[in-house]
Parts: sequence; C-alpha cells; structure tokens
Amino acid sequence: MSEQLRAVEWTGDGLSLIDQTLLPHRLERMHVTDVDTLVDAVRRLVVRGAPAIGVAGAYGVVIALRQAGRAGWDRAELLAAVSRIREARPTAVNLAVCVDRVLPLLDRGADAVLAEARAIHREDEQANRDMGGHGADWLLKRLPADRPLRLLTHCNAGALATAGWGTALGVIRELHARGRVELVHVDETRPLLQGSRLTAWELAHDGIPHRVQADGAAAGTILRGEVDAAIVGADRIAANGDTANKVGTVAVALACAHAGVPFLVAAPTTTVDTATATGAGIPIELRGEDEVLEWDGRRMAPEGSRGHNPAFDVTPGELVTALVTERGVLEVAAGELPGDRLV
Amino acid sequence: MSEQLRAVEWTGDGLSLIDQTLLPHRLERMHVTDVDTLVDAVRRLVVRGAPAIGVAGAYGVVIALRQAGRAGWDRAELLAAVSRIREARPTAVNLAVCVDRVLPLLDRGADAVLAEARAIHREDEQANRDMGGHGADWLLKRLPADRPLRLLTHCNAGALATAGWGTALGVIRELHARGRVELVHVDETRPLLQGSRLTAWELAHDGIPHRVQADGAAAGTILRGEVDAAIVGADRIAANGDTANKVGTVAVALACAHAGVPFLVAAPTTTVDTATATGAGIPIELRGEDEVLEWDGRRMAPEGSRGHNPAFDVTPGELVTALVTERGVLEVAAGELPGDRLV
Repeated sequence: MSEQLRAVEWTGDGLSLIDQTLLPHRLERMHVTDVDTLVDAVRRLVVRGAPAIGVAGAYGVVIALRQAGRAGWDRAELLAAVSRIREARPTAVNLAVCVDRVLPLLDRGADAVLAEARAIHREDEQANRDMGGHGADWLLKRLPADRPLRLLTHCNAGALATAGWGTALGVIRELHARGRVELVHVDETRPLLQGSRLTAWELAHDGIPHRVQADGAAAGTILRGEVDAAIVGADRIAANGDTANKVGTVAVALACAHAGVPFLVAAPTTTVDTATATGAGIPIELRGEDEVLEWDGRRMAPEGSRGHNPAFDVTPGELVTALVTERGVLEVAAGELPGDRLV
Repeated sequence: MSEQLRAVEWTGDGLSLIDQTLLPHRLERMHVTDVDTLVDAVRRLVVRGAPAIGVAGAYGVVIALRQAGRAGWDRAELLAAVSRIREARPTAVNLAVCVDRVLPLLDRGADAVLAEARAIHREDEQANRDMGGHGADWLLKRLPADRPLRLLTHCNAGALATAGWGTALGVIRELHARGRVELVHVDETRPLLQGSRLTAWELAHDGIPHRVQADGAAAGTILRGEVDAAIVGADRIAANGDTANKVGTVAVALACAHAGVPFLVAAPTTTVDTATATGAGIPIELRGEDEVLEWDGRRMAPEGSRGHNPAFDVTPGELVTALVTERGVLEVAAGELPGDRLV
C-alpha cells in the first residue's frame, strides 16, 4: 500500500495530488502547476493532514519559483505567492515549518528548493515508519498480551494525511503487521467525514477490520470498555503538550481519561511548535457554516439557522497519555513535556 | 407555539403524528389507526423522544382495542399487539411505563383507556411546564446574573419529543421567556440529525438565537468557555442517576465536568426507572448500520466497511449536576439520588 497510495507526488513539472474530496467513490489525481490552484486545493482539502500539506507546501515553493519565471514576477510578487501558500490554512504548524525550511534556498533556484522538498518528503515517510514502531512497542508493553487490541481513531492520520504510511494509522498498520489488531473503531468525523470516507478506505484497502461510528458514539464505546487505546494525529502541539487536532478529538481524550484508557497522539516532531507555550496560543481555523448546515449540497438545518464550524479543538496535555514521535515516545500526562524534551 | 406544535394528537378515530423524518423540509402529519403502522412509526422515528412515544404508546392501546373489535381478535391477540407497542423501542422507559399505566383499564374498554391516555398527555405537558420553571430557577440562581446565558443542548428534547413544550427545551423556552438566553449551541446529533433538523427548527420557530455545530465540536466549545450550562433530555434514568440519552450525550457531560460547567438533565419522573439500579442495567438500542454508513440513501463509507450504531449512551450519575423534574431539582452529582428521592 505504501508504494501505491501517495497523496502527494512530485511529477517533474508539478504536484500530483489525490483529490481527497472525491474519496471513497473515486480515486482521481489533480495536477497542480500554479500557486492559486495549490492554495485552493489546500483550502478545499483536496490535500489535507498536517504532514501532507507541509510536504505540498514545500513543493509549492518550487511551483511558485517556476511560475515567477514564466510570469515575470519580481521578488515581492514571488514572496507574496509563497506567503499565500504558507498561510493557506492556519492551524497545522507543519505547513509554515516546511515552507520556512526551503525558503533560505530561494535564491539558489528551483532545483535547490526541489531537492530540499524531496528531502522533507522522504524524511516524513521515514518519520512515520519510525513512529509506527515506537508507538506499537509502547502500546504492546502496556496492554494485555493475550489478545489482539481494539483501537479507536478520529479523523484521518493515515497515508492520505502524510507523505505515505501515516502517523496514527502508521502505528495501527504496524500493530496489524504484528498480528495485534482485532478491530479499529473509526469515528466518522463530521462535518467532512474524513473518518468514514478516508480512514475506512485506507483500512479496507489494507484489510484491517474496522467499524465506522458517529462521533457521538466514541465516548460511550470507550466508557463501555470496548476500546484498549485511542490513537490520533495532530495539527500542532504546544510546548506543554496541548494538542490541536480535528474537532471532536478532545471528547475522545476526555472519555479515555475517565475510563483509564491510554490516549496517544502520533505526530512527527515537526508538528511540535515549541514557540507556542500552550494550546491557548494555537489559532483554530473556523470553516464555512455550510459544511455543518448542508449535506452533499442539500440543506439539512432550517433556512434561518446559523452554524458554527471550528475545524479543530485543543486537547489539554494532561489528557495526552503519550506523544509518539519519530524520536521516541513522551509520556506527556506524566510530565514529559515536548517543550523540554524536543528542543 | 405550544398550541400549534403537537407531535402527538388524538383525533377521535386515531393518532395524528407529525412525521419527524420529513422535518425541517416538510411539516406533514401521519394518521395512525392500526397497531402495525404505529409500531413502524415508533421504530422509524416518525414519532420520537421518550415522553412523546410514551403518550403515543398509551393512545396505541386504544388503537389496539378498537382494532381488536374490528378484526375480531381474541384476548391473546390483543395482548400480543399491546406487547408489540410496548417493546417497539427498548431504551426509553416511558413507553413501557405509559402502556403499563393504561393496561389495568383494558377490560373497561376503549373509552376508559382513552380517558387515561388523555390524562397522561395532559400531565406530560404540565410536567414539562413545571420542569421549565424549576430548571430556569435553579440555573438563574447559580449562573451570572448580569448577562443572558449561553446554553448547549444535544438531540431534541423539545415540543416534538414530548406532549408539547419540551423537557430540556422547556427549560430553555422558560429562560427565553424571561429574557435570559443569549445563544443556544445545538449539536447536530448524528446519525439522524435531530439537533439540526428538529431542535434548530423549534428554536427558529420560537425566535431563540441558536447555532448548529457538529457533535464533535461540543466538547471544544465547552472547554473554550463558550457555554454556561448544558441541558439535555433523557430516555431512562437509573436509581443512582445514571442517565441514558441520545448517543453523544456523555461526551457533553465529560466536557462539562472538566470545565466546571453545570450539566443538567431535564426529564419527567416517569423517566426515572427505580427498578434499574445503575446504567449497566439499561438496554441500549443498536440501530441499523446504514444510518451511519449512508446519507440520504447514498453510501458515504467504502462498500466493504461495517458500521456500529448505538442509539444511546449512558452518562454516569456522578456527571449529572442536576436532574430537573416536574417535582423539583435533584443535585445528583452531589449525592441526591433519584432512587432515594423519587420513590
């Protein structure tokens, strides 16, 4: 699977993206060779997931440089285009981190930037693989050894959200490879259904047993003792371990804490933003109301009703049992803070 | 509104039900004069909400008696029909309680049963009104007096779910009548969207400001300090205060507990099942997988994926700040248990 399923690919003349808005019904790729199309693709979630939009952003600087050459942009126009890529979505820190990493190479030209973007891409996939191993080791040491595990995940932190393989789903894939997965509870993840559309699709693709449930069912499933551990990805992690992830995540964390079930966050260290002290400093993207009020273009709420659509929430670090990174596992709730350990 | 909006009405020759599966797009009534149609309407949620299906169940015994007369049923056939009504849905205790209340009158004929069903109907609406007053008084004594309140509700516990007026929405209507509602956060309530389809419709009808959000957004909204109190209904309450309500409710309760925000359950005392010691004894209805996997008949999850669709969850009594009944308010988390106070 990791060979076939690449949400983000550089084709030589631009970016090829799996259009994730069309899954699971159609697997189509979109070819991107200009900045406006890229920014639109990031905003519409054609490409999504903190690591994946980071990689796409780095390649985006190559696209911007080439477009500057074609269109005769001056340096100010080029930098403005790069800024638009960097700020296409506000919550995931990876997008800004990856753009900033290639930025010093701007004056050395598109090939130098491309080489760095390719390095980011490779490193992200390797980080995912390492994370999978660390996370699986940590869980297997702490959970019942006599039976396969029942896991729960929220949103999609899989191959589609990363350079390949996945963060939270990377851990789950590794556990599956070791024969230790009985069932994955997949929260459907309203409003955009990344769980039922994308995570279920990845799990079905890999033959991993799973069951889709409404987001509201997650807490009850956990409290009834049907879950051994929950594992999610992250869009930004503050120095104290407060974790921004897809809206609905903190309810999963609260239920895990109440039930004494480990709640794991799997994310590359690039997701840790040590410049942000606590979750209160993480900007939460507010998306359009229609994502909540409509379904498939059909209005579900009454005409006069308004909607409220924060795309993320913040899980307090005290509820994060463990943060799984490519460098190892931090036990955040027990006091191992990312700001102390990952600087 | 309370005059116009009657989810359940007796017309003389049968039951007239608002078909809640068609809201908010169409307001149509369904006329029921036979047991099979009634059982199907209860199962398909044409009529729903613990108090409303209780009232419908009591009238249903009248329908069964008349059908027995028309069809020449013997007593065993009549009792079997009554049992099918009583067991049409398993979680709400009100259905069984209301059927059992009219059952001793069976031998006195349809008119005697009808008189008792009408009494149940009247009492339920009066109970809602009393609950509204008690709940509003309790909240206003404990919440900031200098500004209108921001409330949150899950599912629909309004006029549509009751004999009229509402339980949780009855408290909210009363607060609105006293000029004390700034905003109601309405969880959309997947999978069947009772929040965005029904609660938003009732609030819009009454001109109460509200905002629909994904269920996953509720915990974050509460943790960010945007909610002064959450109020929900209940389908069954055990003697120790454990409360079965629409799936997703316990996540709201956990977030309220974490944030120090009052979590209120509003329900008539008929919802308290003192024969059930704890929530572990409450049967949780598992509904069809397609409610989660499909939307409007269109498959959202991959073809091979399975679904898990519990319709309710159980909120531990320790998370229920207050239980608002027609007889007054019990502070459950503080140790006032329904099993001690309402027997």
